[in-house]
Amino acid sequence: MNALNVAEYMQTLGLQARQAAARMAAADAASRNRALRLLAGLLREQAQPLQADNARDLERAAAAGLAEPMIDRLRLTPKTIETVAQGCEQLAAMADIVGEVSGLRQQPSGIRVGQMRVPIGVFGMIFESRPNVTIEAASLSIKSGNACILRGGSEAIESNKALARLVQQALVQAGLPAEAVQLVQTTDREAVGQLIAMPQFVDVIIPRGGKGLIERISRDARVPVIKHLDGNCHTYVDDPCDIDMAVRVADNAKTQKYSPCNATEGLLVARGVAAEFLPRIGAVYAAKGVEMRCDAESAAVLAGVPAAKVQAASEQDWFEEYLAPVISVKVVADVVEAIAHINRYGSHHTDAILTRDHVHAQQFLREVDSASVMVNASTRFADGFEYGLGAEIGISTDKFHARGPVGIEGLTSLKWVVLGQGEVRS
Amino acid sequence: MNALNVAEYMQTLGLQARQAAARMAAADAASRNRALRLLAGLLREQAQPLQADNARDLERAAAAGLAEPMIDRLRLTPKTIETVAQGCEQLAAMADIVGEVSGLRQQPSGIRVGQMRVPIGVFGMIFESRPNVTIEAASLSIKSGNACILRGGSEAIESNKALARLVQQALVQAGLPAEAVQLVQTTDREAVGQLIAMPQFVDVIIPRGGKGLIERISRDARVPVIKHLDGNCHTYVDDPCDIDMAVRVADNAKTQKYSPCNATEGLLVARGVAAEFLPRIGAVYAAKGVEMRCDAESAAVLAGVPAAKVQAASEQDWFEEYLAPVISVKVVADVVEAIAHINRYGSHHTDAILTRDHVHAQQFLREVDSASVMVNASTRFADGFEYGLGAEIGISTDKFHARGPVGIEGLTSLKWVVLGQGEVRS
Repeated sequence: MNALNVAEYMQTLGLQARQAAARMAAADAASRNRALRLLAGLLREQAQPLQADNARDLERAAAAGLAEPMIDRLRLTPKTIETVAQGCEQLAAMADIVGEVSGLRQQPSGIRVGQMRVPIGVFGMIFESRPNVTIEAASLSIKSGNACILRGGSEAIESNKALARLVQQALVQAGLPAEAVQLVQTTDREAVGQLIAMPQFVDVIIPRGGKGLIERISRDARVPVIKHLDGNCHTYVDDPCDIDMAVRVADNAKTQKYSPCNATEGLLVARGVAAEFLPRIGAVYAAKGVEMRCDAESAAVLAGVPAAKVQAASEQDWFEEYLAPVISVKVVADVVEAIAHINRYGSHHTDAILTRDHVHAQQFLREVDSASVMVNASTRFADGFEYGLGAEIGISTDKFHARGPVGIEGLTSLKWVVLGQGEVRS
Repeated sequence: MNALNVAEYMQTLGLQARQAAARMAAADAASRNRALRLLAGLLREQAQPLQADNARDLERAAAAGLAEPMIDRLRLTPKTIETVAQGCEQLAAMADIVGEVSGLRQQPSGIRVGQMRVPIGVFGMIFESRPNVTIEAASLSIKSGNACILRGGSEAIESNKALARLVQQALVQAGLPAEAVQLVQTTDREAVGQLIAMPQFVDVIIPRGGKGLIERISRDARVPVIKHLDGNCHTYVDDPCDIDMAVRVADNAKTQKYSPCNATEGLLVARGVAAEFLPRIGAVYAAKGVEMRCDAESAAVLAGVPAAKVQAASEQDWFEEYLAPVISVKVVADVVEAIAHINRYGSHHTDAILTRDHVHAQQFLREVDSASVMVNASTRFADGFEYGLGAEIGISTDKFHARGPVGIEGLTSLKWVVLGQGEVRS
């Protein structure tokens, strides 16, 4: 396609999505849930042909010399197919939130006023490599009564096309419009530029991928964007604190997996427990090869830990999202200094306090300005599944609209409903 | 001030607002409510000096040849001062929503997950003429634990300065930072450009005023904007319907006041009741000098009404927000056509159905894609006070974040709180 054709093509997708959105918003919950269960069935039935289409992407990736972890993220195994199928069934089993009316109360004039939860309309999703995201996004879109336009990475185009065909088949079998879930069929980059600049057809954009991609999209989008750029998450070990628990949680928060955005990147330790806590967590990190970027005070305490990889932290380290076996470490006076450090250097994603002190816990919860704030838990829990949202379409570090892990509620808005008996304004 | 000085000045206001916002978010409800009650007291005590400052604006406006309605909107009377003072007291008496935790539920991992309502941070408000908006915005900001930067119209600068002094006095007396409410003291237009482009200091912009102003701000703002451009509201008279009620409500919705954004601009009438309803509402509108822009079918019915001002409607009429004694009138087949017309030509502000049919009412509520959807009530009720929000900072026709009349809830966001007992992710 040339640029003009891409623009026309995207306008067509947009118009079709807008029309499908109106039908999805009016559809009943039973049809939407039926589409999800049909989709689960089709995924299982078509697991082999899906893997054959996926193999073409994998071969192309191997030929292009993609790194093994990248190829791994592309792969549709029987296990990943079963997982997304189960995800669809779980969503189908969840209570419906579309049309839910809350807070309906009579006002002095006699009118009753409440709020009804309704779909946002059309969302555009831009993502890379993992083809299972296609099913996750499609199923959340169907459950929430929206329409969506999905733009996956070019490396997964064959897999995504095959998955999108199954989604549309399930929609049609359930009596819903196929255009409620559309995959952008061209890998032309111009398509992204078009998708993010059609406010008449697309209500919100959800980009998932590298920071560069998300920054570009946020800058150029002409509609709201649900996004997070960084996950510079902190774990603060307070005084007083259960040190065994703190070691276990600080270990998990950093080392359970290094790449997720909710992994802890900064460890803050109250002065009163530093001498007891730091050598113990230092030994754990040393055993796992985690490098510690330390302020002078923590470095002094950690100096005695055998095999510890201790480096002096620079100012930049406090801002860093390492996504690697590296962590910044700092001794602070108290919870007040910890909160100030987090609000200054953090990315407003997820931060935890480990404490026995109720007042400190309450202050931390109230004053840390992050999407998720935790007491005595691993930052790794910041996730739509773990929060009981059924699934997660993305994570937002913005404060406007949805914040933190975004599930089906984040794909809806609340409109006002007024029920009267002929009241007039005087 | 020159442009450079204005930029520096606005950056200073921004930094001060950001710092004040952190203190406001941490302040207790008692202090915030005390500030509101102190402000009410100061407004009453200082009513005379306020009117003296206001008189300087009024003189300048008269000398500049401003139209009488404009001068009227500028005027601070004992009554408007008492009204805003009472508004502050009403807000102080309302339940506090900052820090409210909802939906706290245990998840399978053992962690308990819920959401805490917290202030957005800093909002910037841009408005024209009516100086009482200064107090409304300041009081909503204080109640919701935010900081704000207010930019009023140059014609009201003396009044606004005097009001802002009282607000800051009340804040300080309550132990809160004066910078929690700052008025832009320069009338330089460059200040607006700066205010809407400081994402590091300002989280959201709320413009109130003419459509041109709001369009410009929305286009140039680098932060989210809470706004509505048009109020092309509809009243649909369904079949079956209580005709007496329909005449009363359709009259009120159009004629109770012509200028508000929630006044009805389009009247849709089901074919089955057109012959009975139209002559009656036509006579009411004729008596009040309301011009009717009609489709052929309604024009034919209205032809027999004495003194009726009937014109043929053009396609453009269906889009029009008249804000005047003019209304578009169209006969439709049924509720389905009414919904399609409203979703196509309306501005997603406020639309009402007048009906006895329960199924039609439910369908209208569900499918009309507007911020407020009403059954058997005047569209004029779309208002923060009437909805029980205490006050209204603005009205949004967007679907993202707050929708419809925006009160203190719209100035807050929900962050996730996680309460654990040392849980780790496996």
